[in-house]
Amino acid sequence: MKGKFTAGFDFGTLSCRACLADTMTGDIIATASCPYPHGVMSESLNGHSLPDGFALEDPADYIFAFTSTVRDLFFKSGVSSTDIAGIGIDFTMSTVLPVYADGRPLVFDSKFAQNPHAYAKLWKHHAAQRYADIITAESIKSCPGLLDRVGGKCGCEGLSAKIWETLDNAPEVYAAADYYIEAGDWMVMLLTGRLTRGVGAAVTKALFTRELVPPTDFFFKLDPRFADIDKKLAGDLLFPGSCAGHVREESARIFNADPESWFAPGTEVAVFMADGHAAVAGNGTIDEGCLVASIGTSAAYMIFGREEKYIPGICGCTYGAAIPGLYMYSSGLSCAGDLLGWYADRFTPPEYAKEAAENGETNIGLLTRKAATLCPGESGLIALGWVNGNKSMLQDTDLSGMIIGLTLRSKPEEIWRAFAESLAFGTRVIIESHKSAGIPVKKFIALGGIAEKSPFLMQMFADVLGMEIEISPLAQYPGYSIAVYAAVAAGIYPTVPDACTVMKHTPSAKYIPDNKRGEIYSRLYAEYLKLYDYFGRGENDVMKKLRRIEKTEN
Amino acid sequence: MKGKFTAGFDFGTLSCRACLADTMTGDIIATASCPYPHGVMSESLNGHSLPDGFALEDPADYIFAFTSTVRDLFFKSGVSSTDIAGIGIDFTMSTVLPVYADGRPLVFDSKFAQNPHAYAKLWKHHAAQRYADIITAESIKSCPGLLDRVGGKCGCEGLSAKIWETLDNAPEVYAAADYYIEAGDWMVMLLTGRLTRGVGAAVTKALFTRELVPPTDFFFKLDPRFADIDKKLAGDLLFPGSCAGHVREESARIFNADPESWFAPGTEVAVFMADGHAAVAGNGTIDEGCLVASIGTSAAYMIFGREEKYIPGICGCTYGAAIPGLYMYSSGLSCAGDLLGWYADRFTPPEYAKEAAENGETNIGLLTRKAATLCPGESGLIALGWVNGNKSMLQDTDLSGMIIGLTLRSKPEEIWRAFAESLAFGTRVIIESHKSAGIPVKKFIALGGIAEKSPFLMQMFADVLGMEIEISPLAQYPGYSIAVYAAVAAGIYPTVPDACTVMKHTPSAKYIPDNKRGEIYSRLYAEYLKLYDYFGRGENDVMKKLRRIEKTEN
Repeated sequence: MKGKFTAGFDFGTLSCRACLADTMTGDIIATASCPYPHGVMSESLNGHSLPDGFALEDPADYIFAFTSTVRDLFFKSGVSSTDIAGIGIDFTMSTVLPVYADGRPLVFDSKFAQNPHAYAKLWKHHAAQRYADIITAESIKSCPGLLDRVGGKCGCEGLSAKIWETLDNAPEVYAAADYYIEAGDWMVMLLTGRLTRGVGAAVTKALFTRELVPPTDFFFKLDPRFADIDKKLAGDLLFPGSCAGHVREESARIFNADPESWFAPGTEVAVFMADGHAAVAGNGTIDEGCLVASIGTSAAYMIFGREEKYIPGICGCTYGAAIPGLYMYSSGLSCAGDLLGWYADRFTPPEYAKEAAENGETNIGLLTRKAATLCPGESGLIALGWVNGNKSMLQDTDLSGMIIGLTLRSKPEEIWRAFAESLAFGTRVIIESHKSAGIPVKKFIALGGIAEKSPFLMQMFADVLGMEIEISPLAQYPGYSIAVYAAVAAGIYPTVPDACTVMKHTPSAKYIPDNKRGEIYSRLYAEYLKLYDYFGRGENDVMKKLRRIEKTEN
Repeated sequence: MKGKFTAGFDFGTLSCRACLADTMTGDIIATASCPYPHGVMSESLNGHSLPDGFALEDPADYIFAFTSTVRDLFFKSGVSSTDIAGIGIDFTMSTVLPVYADGRPLVFDSKFAQNPHAYAKLWKHHAAQRYADIITAESIKSCPGLLDRVGGKCGCEGLSAKIWETLDNAPEVYAAADYYIEAGDWMVMLLTGRLTRGVGAAVTKALFTRELVPPTDFFFKLDPRFADIDKKLAGDLLFPGSCAGHVREESARIFNADPESWFAPGTEVAVFMADGHAAVAGNGTIDEGCLVASIGTSAAYMIFGREEKYIPGICGCTYGAAIPGLYMYSSGLSCAGDLLGWYADRFTPPEYAKEAAENGETNIGLLTRKAATLCPGESGLIALGWVNGNKSMLQDTDLSGMIIGLTLRSKPEEIWRAFAESLAFGTRVIIESHKSAGIPVKKFIALGGIAEKSPFLMQMFADVLGMEIEISPLAQYPGYSIAVYAAVAAGIYPTVPDACTVMKHTPSAKYIPDNKRGEIYSRLYAEYLKLYDYFGRGENDVMKKLRRIEKTEN
């Protein structure tokens, strides 16, 4: 008899977190995590400083973290490898790298070990903005419709901008690479020996067409050196829950793993999914009008609809990317926890830090506590929290943050609260844009670190959005959701909805909107929206001009 | 033979600072200072909380501080009272109070001791904004031209708005007061027994007409209860350097002073001047095109011209307010040192504060040092430093501060620098407005705490303005300038320019503009100006709307 357990591995920005699930009950059997030894490299690489906007990782770290969490799962759970029916892998997206035909990353080759373009370019690598801008401009001229499913604009975080950046700056890396792939697809390839691509990433980040092939002619028009792009982007495209292959005999060796704490050859491996997409499963039935929000360092929103609509400024619309039969509209905020952490780190005054230390709370904890005593509008402040650019609905990394309404009375917790409110307002812009386009949004499920840890922020979201917010318990179990897909890939359930129905977890909390606060927020939101459009849509492009002056003067 | 010394008393926001000068050489013989025991009362008065915008002082504090500094001057200098030919008093403006016919403040009367409107309303008391707004609106309708010499707008800091606020909120105080006067005129009255008014304050703050009388009909139209306004605003109007009267016999008793350390009866007392106006003397020849800038907690600018022009948004244009024969155009920034202090107090993170403490520097010192290593434009930030409203050229206390260009990389010293730059940019707006109106600005003389203590800021001013900045040495001797006027009042010199020529001090420092930095600043300034107009001139009135929401939600 086939095993009843599946293992999910969630590769985040800084670590791999894993989960072993019982597919019959949805119980969590064991969890494990392992940070990447080198973390994110954005300032320097091997002692050489990196250009602005770089964010690289070493694929060796992914192997190390994977092997370590696999060993821990076996150790903690005591299950035998034959009890495990399937494996799923999700990854930040687009985190991409060039590899040889056998799956070996170019960076493992001493020829390329010093070349930044041979490393994995992490999702938040923003140095390809220039290429993204040209892709957007060219597509309007020569390939209208190409970007319809990615909100009309090519993002700099996607594979297409990053591969061009590599071609243009390190043509030798491009030439030597047999494939250019998402790190998640690469992990699956190492395990199975088979090159597949998850459909969600391919469509939203590599601009695959409705026929599910790369837009080769368009790439060639952009740059004739893209003549062989179809080869670099080869691989079978698969929908979520599909089996991408089986764990191969030599995988333990490739991963430097102890064969005693490793998967049995033949274990089924689900096709890679983006971490955001994967997070959908495990929260019960997902239908039209559901918004699943993953709110952590940044925020990723997935809104599900039955119809295909063009919505400018979203990151992507992919049929069946998470749930068969449903279009998934992706969008997000470029920063969330990052914004609040930045403020708490850099602007908490000494007496606040002292008070926090005395109370045994964090600076964020203290700022939250003080901010929670304020009423909406009481501080007279509004912020645009674009300190890491604006992902949706403006898709512009050159935008920046602002705050208005400062007076000599303004206190740190008031400014902090205004930035927190900007996250909720930014989310309302996204939801209202979907509604205007004819995609209803009726249910809000939140997961991720902020969703789990900040009742203050989640109540604010409920009040600003005028919607009930359900907190997914899966925030505590990264990797669980992809284990649900692995159960489908392993044939335990025939469809993703079937697996979701059995393996669901009930919300860990619910936040009910308050009408009185909501009314004040609506007045503030009207002002927010005016600033959003004025600074975000080109009427005053001061943010971009400041970035340009900054670059030329540095 | 008459004494050759004069004593100047400079009543600031928090203390009285005095200076004894040798009128033959300009030497400083002694200085003294004394803080006001109760300081500024803005949160509560006698245990009762005060409305938003209140800023009161107790006139008993002025008497205490005056007597104390007089005693110190005598003690430190060893001069005898007969060696002192004249006394001058300058004061923050408009700091106003209601008094009885004999000069006794209403607040000394137990009937009024609990009434906030019986106290001195300090210049930065902003609670009369509503009344100022109506005066502006009404003057346009029924008395065009009235506000031409105050920039077209009635400021809430002036006597006219404050007296109406008193009439409307405490009619019993208005009715009981024989006079409503500037605190500086009141000090002169206590000393001499004679009611005079300095022309500068009367014209700019009490809206006295070209005929140098109050606009009684206009006040009556505003509110029929103003029928007796001419009596409340009585007193002889005098130009700077005029003798307002002589120290009277009973003054020692009135001031609770030791007669041994007090002025000789008959000593000449100069008419009161605003502290900003008085600051002009002592810096050598002041002619057309000179800008004298007093940069401390806020910044007051006086620009001298030979012609009368209408410049919307300035605080006043008064003929002969500081130098006979010259029009003095007054303007300013609502905050300067206050802005930088606010940021340093509330947003300096613990590790910076620790570093500052270890180096024995202040937080402002550390932020300055770090900010000084940055190049213009390097941080990609622009601020509107209106955290205490905008005095010139917008005359609007409901405006607030903003900063734009924030990213996850933004550091405290970068934000601090952007706020510092906003002071220089705000100054450039003022200078360019004068130039456009046909009033040249060719020479910049700076004094005050910031001018003296911050070479960083003064160099920035030079670079942004493209002008050489001379630092007046008088920053170290508040009270010296009014002692120069006292020398004229005492008849030692026939005219103010004569006194200025002899009693001048040479600049303590000069800052030369750097062209390269100036060019970058000009690019930033263009962006600053666009934001200035957008938020300041009504196209987007979000700042005012936020203030309204704030008031209704508190």
